Amino acid sequence: MTTNETKACWIWYTGDFEVYHSMLLNDRREQNGFDYTCMWRSTRPEFNVRFNANVDIPEDSVFTVHVKGKGYLRLDGHSQRIDIPVHITRGRHELRFEVSCLETFPALYIDSEYVKTGADWNCERYDEIWRPVGCEPAMTSPDDDPAVFPFSYEDTPVRAKENVDSGSLLDFGTETFGPVTVTRTAAMGKILISYGESREEALDYEHAIITETLESGEDSVTMRSRAFRYLFVRTENGAEPTVTAKLEYIPIEDKASFSCDDELLSDIWKICTRTFHLNSREFYLDGIKRDRWVWSGDAYQSYMVNRYLYFEPSIIRRTIRALLGKRPAVRHVNTINDYSAYIIIAVWEYYFATGDMDFVNAVWDDITDLYHFIVSRLDEKTGYVVGRPGDWIFIDWANIDKDGPLCAEQILLWQTYLSMARLTALRGETDPGYQEKADALKTSILRDYWDEERGAFIDSYTSGKNWVSRHPNIFAILYDFVDQNTKERIAANVLHGDLAEPITTPYFKFFELMALSKMGDIETTQNYIDEYWGGMLKLGATTVWEQFDPRKHGVEHLEMYGMPYGCSLCHAWGSGPIALLGQFCAGVTPTSVGYETFDVAPQPGRYQHFDAVVPVQGGTVAVSYRDGKVKARATVPGGTLKFAGKSCEIPTDCDAVIEA
Amino acid sequence: MTTNETKACWIWYTGDFEVYHSMLLNDRREQNGFDYTCMWRSTRPEFNVRFNANVDIPEDSVFTVHVKGKGYLRLDGHSQRIDIPVHITRGRHELRFEVSCLETFPALYIDSEYVKTGADWNCERYDEIWRPVGCEPAMTSPDDDPAVFPFSYEDTPVRAKENVDSGSLLDFGTETFGPVTVTRTAAMGKILISYGESREEALDYEHAIITETLESGEDSVTMRSRAFRYLFVRTENGAEPTVTAKLEYIPIEDKASFSCDDELLSDIWKICTRTFHLNSREFYLDGIKRDRWVWSGDAYQSYMVNRYLYFEPSIIRRTIRALLGKRPAVRHVNTINDYSAYIIIAVWEYYFATGDMDFVNAVWDDITDLYHFIVSRLDEKTGYVVGRPGDWIFIDWANIDKDGPLCAEQILLWQTYLSMARLTALRGETDPGYQEKADALKTSILRDYWDEERGAFIDSYTSGKNWVSRHPNIFAILYDFVDQNTKERIAANVLHGDLAEPITTPYFKFFELMALSKMGDIETTQNYIDEYWGGMLKLGATTVWEQFDPRKHGVEHLEMYGMPYGCSLCHAWGSGPIALLGQFCAGVTPTSVGYETFDVAPQPGRYQHFDAVVPVQGGTVAVSYRDGKVKARATVPGGTLKFAGKSCEIPTDCDAVIEA
Repeated sequence: MTTNETKACWIWYTGDFEVYHSMLLNDRREQNGFDYTCMWRSTRPEFNVRFNANVDIPEDSVFTVHVKGKGYLRLDGHSQRIDIPVHITRGRHELRFEVSCLETFPALYIDSEYVKTGADWNCERYDEIWRPVGCEPAMTSPDDDPAVFPFSYEDTPVRAKENVDSGSLLDFGTETFGPVTVTRTAAMGKILISYGESREEALDYEHAIITETLESGEDSVTMRSRAFRYLFVRTENGAEPTVTAKLEYIPIEDKASFSCDDELLSDIWKICTRTFHLNSREFYLDGIKRDRWVWSGDAYQSYMVNRYLYFEPSIIRRTIRALLGKRPAVRHVNTINDYSAYIIIAVWEYYFATGDMDFVNAVWDDITDLYHFIVSRLDEKTGYVVGRPGDWIFIDWANIDKDGPLCAEQILLWQTYLSMARLTALRGETDPGYQEKADALKTSILRDYWDEERGAFIDSYTSGKNWVSRHPNIFAILYDFVDQNTKERIAANVLHGDLAEPITTPYFKFFELMALSKMGDIETTQNYIDEYWGGMLKLGATTVWEQFDPRKHGVEHLEMYGMPYGCSLCHAWGSGPIALLGQFCAGVTPTSVGYETFDVAPQPGRYQHFDAVVPVQGGTVAVSYRDGKVKARATVPGGTLKFAGKSCEIPTDCDAVIEA
Repeated sequence: MTTNETKACWIWYTGDFEVYHSMLLNDRREQNGFDYTCMWRSTRPEFNVRFNANVDIPEDSVFTVHVKGKGYLRLDGHSQRIDIPVHITRGRHELRFEVSCLETFPALYIDSEYVKTGADWNCERYDEIWRPVGCEPAMTSPDDDPAVFPFSYEDTPVRAKENVDSGSLLDFGTETFGPVTVTRTAAMGKILISYGESREEALDYEHAIITETLESGEDSVTMRSRAFRYLFVRTENGAEPTVTAKLEYIPIEDKASFSCDDELLSDIWKICTRTFHLNSREFYLDGIKRDRWVWSGDAYQSYMVNRYLYFEPSIIRRTIRALLGKRPAVRHVNTINDYSAYIIIAVWEYYFATGDMDFVNAVWDDITDLYHFIVSRLDEKTGYVVGRPGDWIFIDWANIDKDGPLCAEQILLWQTYLSMARLTALRGETDPGYQEKADALKTSILRDYWDEERGAFIDSYTSGKNWVSRHPNIFAILYDFVDQNTKERIAANVLHGDLAEPITTPYFKFFELMALSKMGDIETTQNYIDEYWGGMLKLGATTVWEQFDPRKHGVEHLEMYGMPYGCSLCHAWGSGPIALLGQFCAGVTPTSVGYETFDVAPQPGRYQHFDAVVPVQGGTVAVSYRDGKVKARATVPGGTLKFAGKSCEIPTDCDAVIEA
């Protein structure tokens, strides 16, 4: 049982909090005046569940039960009501609560001297499988409602106001997200409000992605939380309602920082972190204006940025559970084959970074179910990932030869097998054949896709085109699919050579820069950051855009997907430099589970000097480079500084120093 | 597409109506002041679904969309809002609606000249499996709400009023069910109301199963629908509030009638039909006071009574879907192994009576899933049904030797295999081995449980007790598990002999009387009806009780499960005489699918004369017996009258007559 010192918290059926809030989130997308409901199956939380604990009660006492929904208690097998205080006698007792909730999801809270709900309780959904309950550290008061996500709020002042035509254009100074309140009089009549990430979007009521029409009234109205920098407000009589806004956010403190002689970088770092925080919500959003959904590929990159910015595992856990939903999987995650693979790979990477085996166990049945779904759709003969009806073989918005099974998908499948093999071993279970399947698949891939002559993987072996794109070759490097020598050939032929077309999306550019940096070329990354992120900065970006093409001009930057303001101006994947600089320039990577040991192998590249702080599990490591010397000091043991072919232990009480 | 003449109706994802309403129903049980939430998993409807139809539009036109939840339309692939009228041009179009609903379940309604929602639309839950939508004939107006079950209501007057202590005892004359409205003044203060199926229960606020306390107020309050014959109402100032009640019901017209020289029978028929109608609701309840749940075993008997009273397949369909819930099965239906088997057997019997293949197809994936769940829990070596953790091997509240696998469970498994084999053949699919499994199982059962010496099946072959109970022997007769000669031996040794203890529950008594009647002994049934149902009548029953023991006196009849008013006084399984008399005394049984052919083989037994009307698919057959002659006339062709070794066709325009 929870000890007296532990704080009681609301408990629910494992995963229900994430399932419920992802259902709300999936349902929140709006676009050009209609509700754009989610395009994949969003599952619901349980309706009725049991909560169980055995308690040792030192004296006859009483406790009060708080419940979301309704139910009763079986105290040592005897049913009794819970809407009045429960009497319990001295001694050992079994508590079993039977709770149902129609409106949201069943949850229970007890905070008495001897009975406290907490993470050590178990739950069951009437399937006789008892599992540890779900709970959230923010849900510790009887007044908390688990169905209301615990966001924080702070006032966001208007920075500038301008009269345009017959309305007011409010500029909040930077991209923001939150509820807007309109205080008005009846005389103002109907009020038209258009939200804009850009000035142009706000002023274009007809084409702005998000608009709201308030019918005549005199109450003050708070609209749902949305993304904006600008608001354009018009009334029928030309009077100005009072408009105030709040920032809605999760308070997370950054652990990382980075500065160097490249002065652009401090501003780039700022827009990257602002972008990332705005997208760090219940789960990782792709972008805060649109789609406002959780996409597994985008989220996979956010997990990496998380570890290099604030190292907050809870959002990763919540995001993975939201994407998994309730078993059984009936379709690929977000309908995309590669996005299912990223989940299983991400669970392994999450474990390797945190050592959090409880989470692996909590989602084990879900990822096993997803794994079986993936495998059930492989080609019967070749064992390759193929596009079945309803599948979306994505990889990237790019010119990839998608005839037949795609090489990049097979490398992800190989990494999926390996991740399952590793996780199975961790659970102390016998590998039912994951490693064997990985090995067999590798042999097939090398036979079917490897072009020895050109030293590169081709996209497809069925079309006869032998087209080389960067994507499978990047994966081969990132997932160590081939040996060092082959990786170097690939880097030379594909990444630095002209065998393949350039990557055009910031999404895959992140993977490419990781691969380049991993192969020792940090300078390309450094230059690209200046060029791409610096390019947006020059155009006044306050957060990072969904895409940026320096060849475009003016409002052309705002259009995408055939819509004049279709491009999201605050897209999570734009935060990549945080992970790239932390992992490859500062050079911090775990070398064993939970950063029990980690390497710090700085690559200054073209920076003359830099000062970085990078999170590790349980602490941080400060890394700097100046005058040909690297220094490192960590708040936790286990680090090894590596530079210029030398290495030394990183102490916690002074700096390790290596001179080139 | 739906033709212009067809009525538009609300559509939803197949099964969601039943899943949603069974969730509400599962959550409605109350007992001694607390909410007694359901003891098995109750699943939720889908959150987001797609609806699809292809339409031929003869001229440019407009239609209005009604939706529960929110969503948008993809018209030929182009997204558009549906909160304003939709314009559609002349020609062929694909309509695809994407709808989500947080509060209840997604539903759609369109009733325009050229676009009408109806049974010919398809739905999908983002799993790429399109299925025919669900709809209900009662949901045809835009104002209907599929989340509100379409009950009818009529006033139920108070028949007698009596002042007892400081309160009023209201007697409504017969058992009833519905909402009670209390109109009061603030001066009355707190109002205590106790519901009673009996006078004693109503007057005993402390022990009555259902009570309500209305805190002081002056509004009129309508309480939720509940069972009662009596209400006992007390106020703080002794003043009497106005109390009115309504009957809540589904209007279903009886097709059957039965009368004979046994005068008791017309009253017995009345309490049986009243009992059955009160329990014929969204789904078949076990009893209207308590549990108010859907139990598959009780429901299985109700399906039979349905066919012999009003032949209304829709309640059977709804009940089966409610019991199935959403895949995957995580536990046996109602946690009971035998209750899972009854569902699959019931689907076969439903099909045989109605010929409704659409329903078989609609639930096919669900019953296949349930079948696999059943099979996954069989003993690996013997292939027998065994009690796994969480299973409830029930069969009956009786003295059965439950050591090891139980014979009665194996016969139900055998019938389950056979039902799957028959349904598979109907669907034009290859039997994946159901028949083979049935045959192998039969061989095992005969080897392990058949006691040749005593001519009876034993309960258990593992205990060494060789105990004979009536249960497996009754199943062997009902499901034709053995040949006629063996059935006759069983009837003689077990049913008429003293090898086994008597059946004590009305639940299994129904099966026993069926078996006896089937073996030609209708008189035992006739006598038992007089004794058991007649016994209740003499004690003033207005509906049939959950159990009746003539040896008990006064309030002893009301107690059960250790509670003074635990016995439900309106229990569906008490309606058995309707089916017994229709099937065995009037002798009406289908001999091919959907009553295309049917037998009428009357057994007058000890009745001097009788007049019966019995439903058949699409009509009724009138059967009478008088002066040694049987007569029959049907409203549909296909009947054969059989009596005294003779047989003749039953005409639709005059009587068929056979004289003994």
